[in-house]
Amino acid sequence: MEKKIVIVGLGLIGGSLALALKGFEDYRIVGVARRQATVDYALSHGVGDEATLDVTAALRQADVTILCINPEDTVDFLAAHREDFKPGSLVTDVCGIKTAIMEGARVLPPSVDFIGCHPMAGTEFSGIEHAFGEMFRHSHMILTPREESHPAHIALMERMAEYLGCRDVVKTTPARHDAIIAYTSQMMHIIAVSVCDDESLFTCKGYEGSSFRGCTRVAALDVPLWTQLFSLNAPALTACLDTLMENLKAYREVIASGDEKALEEKLTWSSQRKREMDLPGPDLLA
Amino acid sequence: MEKKIVIVGLGLIGGSLALALKGFEDYRIVGVARRQATVDYALSHGVGDEATLDVTAALRQADVTILCINPEDTVDFLAAHREDFKPGSLVTDVCGIKTAIMEGARVLPPSVDFIGCHPMAGTEFSGIEHAFGEMFRHSHMILTPREESHPAHIALMERMAEYLGCRDVVKTTPARHDAIIAYTSQMMHIIAVSVCDDESLFTCKGYEGSSFRGCTRVAALDVPLWTQLFSLNAPALTACLDTLMENLKAYREVIASGDEKALEEKLTWSSQRKREMDLPGPDLLA
Repeated sequence: MEKKIVIVGLGLIGGSLALALKGFEDYRIVGVARRQATVDYALSHGVGDEATLDVTAALRQADVTILCINPEDTVDFLAAHREDFKPGSLVTDVCGIKTAIMEGARVLPPSVDFIGCHPMAGTEFSGIEHAFGEMFRHSHMILTPREESHPAHIALMERMAEYLGCRDVVKTTPARHDAIIAYTSQMMHIIAVSVCDDESLFTCKGYEGSSFRGCTRVAALDVPLWTQLFSLNAPALTACLDTLMENLKAYREVIASGDEKALEEKLTWSSQRKREMDLPGPDLLA
Repeated sequence: MEKKIVIVGLGLIGGSLALALKGFEDYRIVGVARRQATVDYALSHGVGDEATLDVTAALRQADVTILCINPEDTVDFLAAHREDFKPGSLVTDVCGIKTAIMEGARVLPPSVDFIGCHPMAGTEFSGIEHAFGEMFRHSHMILTPREESHPAHIALMERMAEYLGCRDVVKTTPARHDAIIAYTSQMMHIIAVSVCDDESLFTCKGYEGSSFRGCTRVAALDVPLWTQLFSLNAPALTACLDTLMENLKAYREVIASGDEKALEEKLTWSSQRKREMDLPGPDLLA
């Protein structure tokens, strides 16, 4: 019998997954949306194999359910639909925080497996009309399985990641995920919005190069989503911001001092760290 | 008689200009390097039409000289070679600061025109082997002409910018250039190195997405160059960094407060500014 992957929420990420997962093994890809207009768009643009408003009916047939909704909605959804998931099925999500999600997933009955997932991909846009199937290529997929998660389900997630074109699959704990993501992702967004808060923003048009575009791209963020992500990870994020402000202040002081030799040594140290990190810029990726 | 554009310095920018300007009107492109190995590389890779070590001979034949060397070297070069430029010729540069350069250009005899130039393009690499002719496509070219600069020379620079594929030509004063560039360019580099100074840097591999790659790309900077750029623009840059740290602190405080409504309002304001700015991310450029 045909198996089904049900994607709940056909926004930027859910829509992109529905496009990218088409043809994966012998799964049929079923998208669930809240608005008829989204269902119509999905059907007319081939976003997934099917699309429906009937979430409960879809969940009951799902071998895999991927929740592609905001963190707080994910937690609420798990509680509201805890009895609707098919016994033996796998439920996963795409949220950029994992501790709150894994706690929320405790409401599920023991017969339903839950593996936290964070595909490190996206753009500054939102909505199904910005979805594209190539989104996950070269991205890391982070998994936070439970101790009791079924190895076959972890293996399935790994095959899905490969099919999506992900660079690799990284398994970790929710706490470690949230601590690191505060630095690599959340802080980048706070930097971007803070740079755009400068009153010079609009007068600087005509004077920006790729460094400005690269740094500020994500400032046009999805506000409800990021309000939740930042709030649910506030202690880790504020700690990262404190470190950043200290590091910025150290540069500010050495530049203000006029000590060119000290500045050169400091830049040598930092730039060497970046080179050791050996991480290509986004425009250098295929 | 054939006209000549002499490019002094065949590094990343000079090499890219020598590649990109080939075939421009009836100019022959002559590269000048300090090392025979660079001359050999230029000749064997078609970087420009000619390459030589003999700077003085080249300058005497140059209708246009483009200095593609570090800011302090540019100032020193203008003083050392002030008598070598052909009368009636145009001299220009590519430095990311303009006040110090325009002051340095005062040593030139009145018969030699100087127009400051800053093509807002580049990568985090350096050296002729990383040069590529497409570098300037979609970039802004900023010019700081003198009041007495010849209109025919300004028009020539504009045609050159068009040939390079630049998005537009922006004319301004050295002081205004330096004040804005502190924000749009220099501060992006200080952010990038400061982010890389975080002790989490190496443990975060596997957890970075495009926002991290975009923000930190330029941290692998050319240390001597950026030491000079930051030092020569220290007052403007430190003022920008102070504003940034205030804006970061404001976000830090509202996140720490737990007031989600206030955070949502603040994010709405900043992200709306970014959308109004309407500046595509680097990966969205053709």
